[in-house]
Amino acid sequence: MSAVGLPKTKEGGVDFGLDKLAADSERQTAGVPDLWPPDKRVKFALVGLGHLTLEEILPAFAQSKKAKLTGLVSGSPDKARAVAEQYGIKAANIYDYKNYDAIKDNPDIDVVYIVLPNSMHCEFTVRAAAADKHVLCEKPMATNVADCQKMIDSCKAASKKLMIAYRIQYEPNNRLIQKLVRDQTFGKVKIIEASNGQNQGDVNQWRHKRALAGGGAMPDIGIYCLNTIRSMLGEEPSEVFATTYSTPGDPRFSEVEESIVFQLRFPGGVIAHCSSGYGYHELRQYRFMAEKAWFGMEPAFAYSGLQMQLSLPQGSREIFAVPKIDAVNQFVLELDHMAECIAYDKKPLTPGEEGLQDQKIIEALYASASEHKPVALLPVAGLDSTRGDALPPLAPLKL
Amino acid sequence: MSAVGLPKTKEGGVDFGLDKLAADSERQTAGVPDLWPPDKRVKFALVGLGHLTLEEILPAFAQSKKAKLTGLVSGSPDKARAVAEQYGIKAANIYDYKNYDAIKDNPDIDVVYIVLPNSMHCEFTVRAAAADKHVLCEKPMATNVADCQKMIDSCKAASKKLMIAYRIQYEPNNRLIQKLVRDQTFGKVKIIEASNGQNQGDVNQWRHKRALAGGGAMPDIGIYCLNTIRSMLGEEPSEVFATTYSTPGDPRFSEVEESIVFQLRFPGGVIAHCSSGYGYHELRQYRFMAEKAWFGMEPAFAYSGLQMQLSLPQGSREIFAVPKIDAVNQFVLELDHMAECIAYDKKPLTPGEEGLQDQKIIEALYASASEHKPVALLPVAGLDSTRGDALPPLAPLKL
Amino acid sequence: MSAVGLPKTKEGGVDFGLDKLAADSERQTAGVPDLWPPDKRVKFALVGLGHLTLEEILPAFAQSKKAKLTGLVSGSPDKARAVAEQYGIKAANIYDYKNYDAIKDNPDIDVVYIVLPNSMHCEFTVRAAAADKHVLCEKPMATNVADCQKMIDSCKAASKKLMIAYRIQYEPNNRLIQKLVRDQTFGKVKIIEASNGQNQGDVNQWRHKRALAGGGAMPDIGIYCLNTIRSMLGEEPSEVFATTYSTPGDPRFSEVEESIVFQLRFPGGVIAHCSSGYGYHELRQYRFMAEKAWFGMEPAFAYSGLQMQLSLPQGSREIFAVPKIDAVNQFVLELDHMAECIAYDKKPLTPGEEGLQDQKIIEALYASASEHKPVALLPVAGLDSTRGDALPPLAPLKL
Amino acid sequence: MSAVGLPKTKEGGVDFGLDKLAADSERQTAGVPDLWPPDKRVKFALVGLGHLTLEEILPAFAQSKKAKLTGLVSGSPDKARAVAEQYGIKAANIYDYKNYDAIKDNPDIDVVYIVLPNSMHCEFTVRAAAADKHVLCEKPMATNVADCQKMIDSCKAASKKLMIAYRIQYEPNNRLIQKLVRDQTFGKVKIIEASNGQNQGDVNQWRHKRALAGGGAMPDIGIYCLNTIRSMLGEEPSEVFATTYSTPGDPRFSEVEESIVFQLRFPGGVIAHCSSGYGYHELRQYRFMAEKAWFGMEPAFAYSGLQMQLSLPQGSREIFAVPKIDAVNQFVLELDHMAECIAYDKKPLTPGEEGLQDQKIIEALYASASEHKPVALLPVAGLDSTRGDALPPLAPLKL
Repeated sequence: MSAVGLPKTKEGGVDFGLDKLAADSERQTAGVPDLWPPDKRVKFALVGLGHLTLEEILPAFAQSKKAKLTGLVSGSPDKARAVAEQYGIKAANIYDYKNYDAIKDNPDIDVVYIVLPNSMHCEFTVRAAAADKHVLCEKPMATNVADCQKMIDSCKAASKKLMIAYRIQYEPNNRLIQKLVRDQTFGKVKIIEASNGQNQGDVNQWRHKRALAGGGAMPDIGIYCLNTIRSMLGEEPSEVFATTYSTPGDPRFSEVEESIVFQLRFPGGVIAHCSSGYGYHELRQYRFMAEKAWFGMEPAFAYSGLQMQLSLPQGSREIFAVPKIDAVNQFVLELDHMAECIAYDKKPLTPGEEGLQDQKIIEALYASASEHKPVALLPVAGLDSTRGDALPPLAPLKL
Repeated sequence: MSAVGLPKTKEGGVDFGLDKLAADSERQTAGVPDLWPPDKRVKFALVGLGHLTLEEILPAFAQSKKAKLTGLVSGSPDKARAVAEQYGIKAANIYDYKNYDAIKDNPDIDVVYIVLPNSMHCEFTVRAAAADKHVLCEKPMATNVADCQKMIDSCKAASKKLMIAYRIQYEPNNRLIQKLVRDQTFGKVKIIEASNGQNQGDVNQWRHKRALAGGGAMPDIGIYCLNTIRSMLGEEPSEVFATTYSTPGDPRFSEVEESIVFQLRFPGGVIAHCSSGYGYHELRQYRFMAEKAWFGMEPAFAYSGLQMQLSLPQGSREIFAVPKIDAVNQFVLELDHMAECIAYDKKPLTPGEEGLQDQKIIEALYASASEHKPVALLPVAGLDSTRGDALPPLAPLKL
Repeated sequence: MSAVGLPKTKEGGVDFGLDKLAADSERQTAGVPDLWPPDKRVKFALVGLGHLTLEEILPAFAQSKKAKLTGLVSGSPDKARAVAEQYGIKAANIYDYKNYDAIKDNPDIDVVYIVLPNSMHCEFTVRAAAADKHVLCEKPMATNVADCQKMIDSCKAASKKLMIAYRIQYEPNNRLIQKLVRDQTFGKVKIIEASNGQNQGDVNQWRHKRALAGGGAMPDIGIYCLNTIRSMLGEEPSEVFATTYSTPGDPRFSEVEESIVFQLRFPGGVIAHCSSGYGYHELRQYRFMAEKAWFGMEPAFAYSGLQMQLSLPQGSREIFAVPKIDAVNQFVLELDHMAECIAYDKKPLTPGEEGLQDQKIIEALYASASEHKPVALLPVAGLDSTRGDALPPLAPLKL
Repeated sequence: MSAVGLPKTKEGGVDFGLDKLAADSERQTAGVPDLWPPDKRVKFALVGLGHLTLEEILPAFAQSKKAKLTGLVSGSPDKARAVAEQYGIKAANIYDYKNYDAIKDNPDIDVVYIVLPNSMHCEFTVRAAAADKHVLCEKPMATNVADCQKMIDSCKAASKKLMIAYRIQYEPNNRLIQKLVRDQTFGKVKIIEASNGQNQGDVNQWRHKRALAGGGAMPDIGIYCLNTIRSMLGEEPSEVFATTYSTPGDPRFSEVEESIVFQLRFPGGVIAHCSSGYGYHELRQYRFMAEKAWFGMEPAFAYSGLQMQLSLPQGSREIFAVPKIDAVNQFVLELDHMAECIAYDKKPLTPGEEGLQDQKIIEALYASASEHKPVALLPVAGLDSTRGDALPPLAPLKL
């Protein structure tokens, strides 16, 4: 029995003991959320108050079962105060970029979630580790391999968790596709195709500055194709080839590439071909072509609306199937995963090593495009060599 | 071995012995059509050269495996000659409405396919039977119950086959749905919903004349809802209720109803609700709501493009599935079924009794609409009491 | 400038002045939520802590821009304390069914949101009005016409707002369909078809008790078909016909109807046919058949995943179109609407009169089913005679 | 007036003067086919009686408006006799590979349609031209550039038409997409993605023999990606890069490649990425990513079931649209186009030059894969430099 006189769930939440509304044959839905007790929740400070924070991450905390928002770090004190007022953050838990290191002394903060321009990820991770805080950092991890390594090293030295915010690896539709690949449910995968594109707005946003972003479409959105394919297969590519293009005279793309089209060869024989662009109407999708079915996601990679599809033969019929699940907030999945890793001392599924590996491949892709030839990568032994503790297994799809 | 030195198929066609193009795991497609030898084919004369004949049925003969077109009957000698020239019909096999009875003496004609305005079906069936020919007759069978009975009686007296052209009962997607219903694959069906509507053109077409058509939307297209539901369940409705409506002042609907909305109660507990209309944009669909899934067709009832859909729960997922098959020409299915019935002396799946039963219910629906109250129908014992020999069984859907 | 040094929005929120991420040609998304300042927010107490409250409404408050949750009323003190702890409700703002009237003295509560079994709606509305609080009440409004009238009268006497929680009328996809109907974008609507069904679980849940629920599928989920059609057309039905059915021996349906199939005739000529059931796999959808297009929603009526569809001809093409919008939380839309009505003294779009009218029609449907004949309703003049102030207009769909 | 007393159509067919069935606002359908008079029809002999001929092309003649089948050429006299019997071909019009040249003296044959293994296309085209017959030849045109050139030269020398059977360029959905590209309806195309794959069956079929097929997936099905992209843009690629793969030990792919993944760079800035494979479940699709919309086909390239899709923003909505047309038989479109070119002395849209250019690019792709580097192609000036007379313009899509 909990303090309030109702039975407890395994996670310490409340078992409300409600009726089962729907018949057993109906779809099993999430039901009443099993919330961790407030004092068990892991305490997050958000670093950076841009679009992603204001539009997606702040509202996500209200749906988290295991995390709570307790602090803010921003270069703009006005923004921080405005957000704090709305979301009930104590004034004492607001920091700026200068006094950021003082979070060390604040027991109200367990972990920082870094949502800054790419080139700032390294500094704010290193400083967080030095302040004895865990780090959840947005993708891409940094703008170069050296920075990625520094981030890993500093967190390791401080014995703090480092997780890179690869939403897709936590999202159930994508995880089901990974399961289909790994279980060879429909035979071996032969070819993978993925694309992630959008049409950029303001010329002067930091994503268009090489120094801040580290590149254009590739590190920002092309990385979803790369990381998703890698995580589905578990293998690392042995060779890559890329072509980049920027429309002459388009001011958005004077520093960074507009488009990138690339191939990835995997040691098991799979070939992937991908594209990403900053200059065309939003399209996010991928597809795995296996011996006995194709399966994929469209939309893929987006914050919401993800949808899996597959198609397989059955006698004289071709069954096109759309397995639908209740939408889940991908930011909540990340927050809760990080909270669990801290509470139960597990290694995040997508640790710093995962971000580092993507950065190595991105640099190889740029080298290929610049040198106009395929570029080989060092062999990597084993499956999932850059990943942490596995998530609980998923129910198989029966088709 | 056939006359031409190649092995024969079971049906007497040619076994070309080709390679298997696709892997065994791929969808099984129809392959090389197994055509009956020309001299085994059943010989059809078409009666009536309107839209349906010119646009659908004449081209269908070229795809038939078991039927061939050998004669024409038309009130317009010019039309008949023009068609005969294009489709290679002998001049001697062209008839008009007066000399139609002379088909009796023509061994080039085994069966007539009546594609005339509804009110003419009875006369041309009775005369065909008298001329010792089998009859395939378009739906609706006639414009009143008495005519339907006369058609049945005259064919019976002459020992000739009588088939009503209910395409849907021969089409594989619809047959699969029937199988799901009968096998209770997804539990019992509780409610059925169906609609079939289109927006009519020329005011003066015969379909807008009560004397020729027997009614408006109901006998022409609403009948698809009625007949499909009846054939899926196998049961007969015990009670009906209908509301009709015609937009005041619309000249298309001065004689016949524009819209009809109706309910059918079945003795097993199923309730169906349907609509049909002549005044709105084409929509043809139906849906069966069963305990553990819903399934249906959209588009349904059309000459082409039919598509089945279903949706069922699986754990935390809802699987929406679209089983696709290679398109089949529904008119070919009817021609080949009638040919088989004649060649092998079987009773057509949709004999005159099937058309008569629909006509009885249509008259009850009109009575309900006119008297503004539900109308009871006489109980009918057994399943499929108005149908002939069953088609070969279909492979089950595994989901 | 706001207190925090950033410009204010029209609603008193904060203008963060961020870059425009996407090109002007891209879809306009919601962007940073324009949150009312905490002290402007309208203060809600939730009455009843069942499935709907725990799974949907409590999380919705975190996404509201204009409302905040400040109080709880529950018959179970344990549940109330557990929820209060999780959602940060002061202990002083927790009430039970006995001391509920004491909310009169609590300035932390502006409005109660009643989420109790149907038969309790009347008492808790009347007591709220007596306690000088506004009322947002779940649908169905009550279990009989007399109770509905009492609720309206008591709120009117106390000069308090009364809103019935008809989510659908606030949801943008549905509102767009209403606009297509009212603007006759695709000509006149001729026929409407709607269905809302699910497969019920626990036998003993209150929804299966006539005294608590007032009926079975009809008042719980069939009401969505009824209310949505009424609100789309603006007209009131002149006559109804219904058939109900319960599977013999199914203990879930010993007191209330399992299925209902009904027709609604509207004075303008539209005929609607609907079904609702408690005994089949979830299906929620509706379709409007108009002269030049059909349009509808599938899924419709659900808490999430709503999707509009339409199909219209263009030359030789049929354009099937799916207009997608960012998902909105329908409970948030209701909370924010109620907050606005209180803050700006507007009449809710769906006031008590709207709930009363549905109840009148539900009683007519039951009378029809029981007497086995159509039942006429009193004529109602004008459009939207039971609705309050209109919502701001929506951008038209251009197709 | 025609010979038969009915008015003639512009093409010499019969105007039956039927009622207009559907309202003007409905979709315009094809109506009664406007058939050329039998004596105006162009006379075809089919060369080769494999799967494609038996399953697709023979039935297609029955739907052709302008062509008729009058002759057969086969290496198997038994097959030829069997087919002749079924399709009413005179015994005098049957040829084998030896006496094939005697078609020169047969006025019943205007044109040969070559449906033989790829390596035989050249010989049978050269012999046909020498026999003073026009040639319609299946794709790929041949197995090497030299053969392609010989075919062009021999037809030119004999002043005969040479058309390569690129179905896709005649199919209306694909043509509409070409129009969207050329008109820049949704801005400039930036990236194109295409794939065409299937899972092969019998190991010993000729498609798996290098000498007969000239390659594996690429010339057989990958060519659809290549040719479709080229014809949509009108431009020729300036550079290509390809990777091929065959599963070790799979006997189907001991001589020819199983999979190919390739990039095409176009001088206007477009980059295309494609894949084709012989070892995975059937998937045929392509997508064009343009500034203001994406559009494509899925299924694409198949004999039937082709479906266009597009998605574009409109205010806060994303409109996903599926423009559907009545299915057309692509083989009929080719037959009728060839017939028209002969009857009216026009240059086929897809002449020998079109096939030659694909072959040049295929050889560059193989060179790239083998040398493991990008391969440049000679610049080609102008648009559609390898194509013949344009088809009549298509009605624009309005969205």
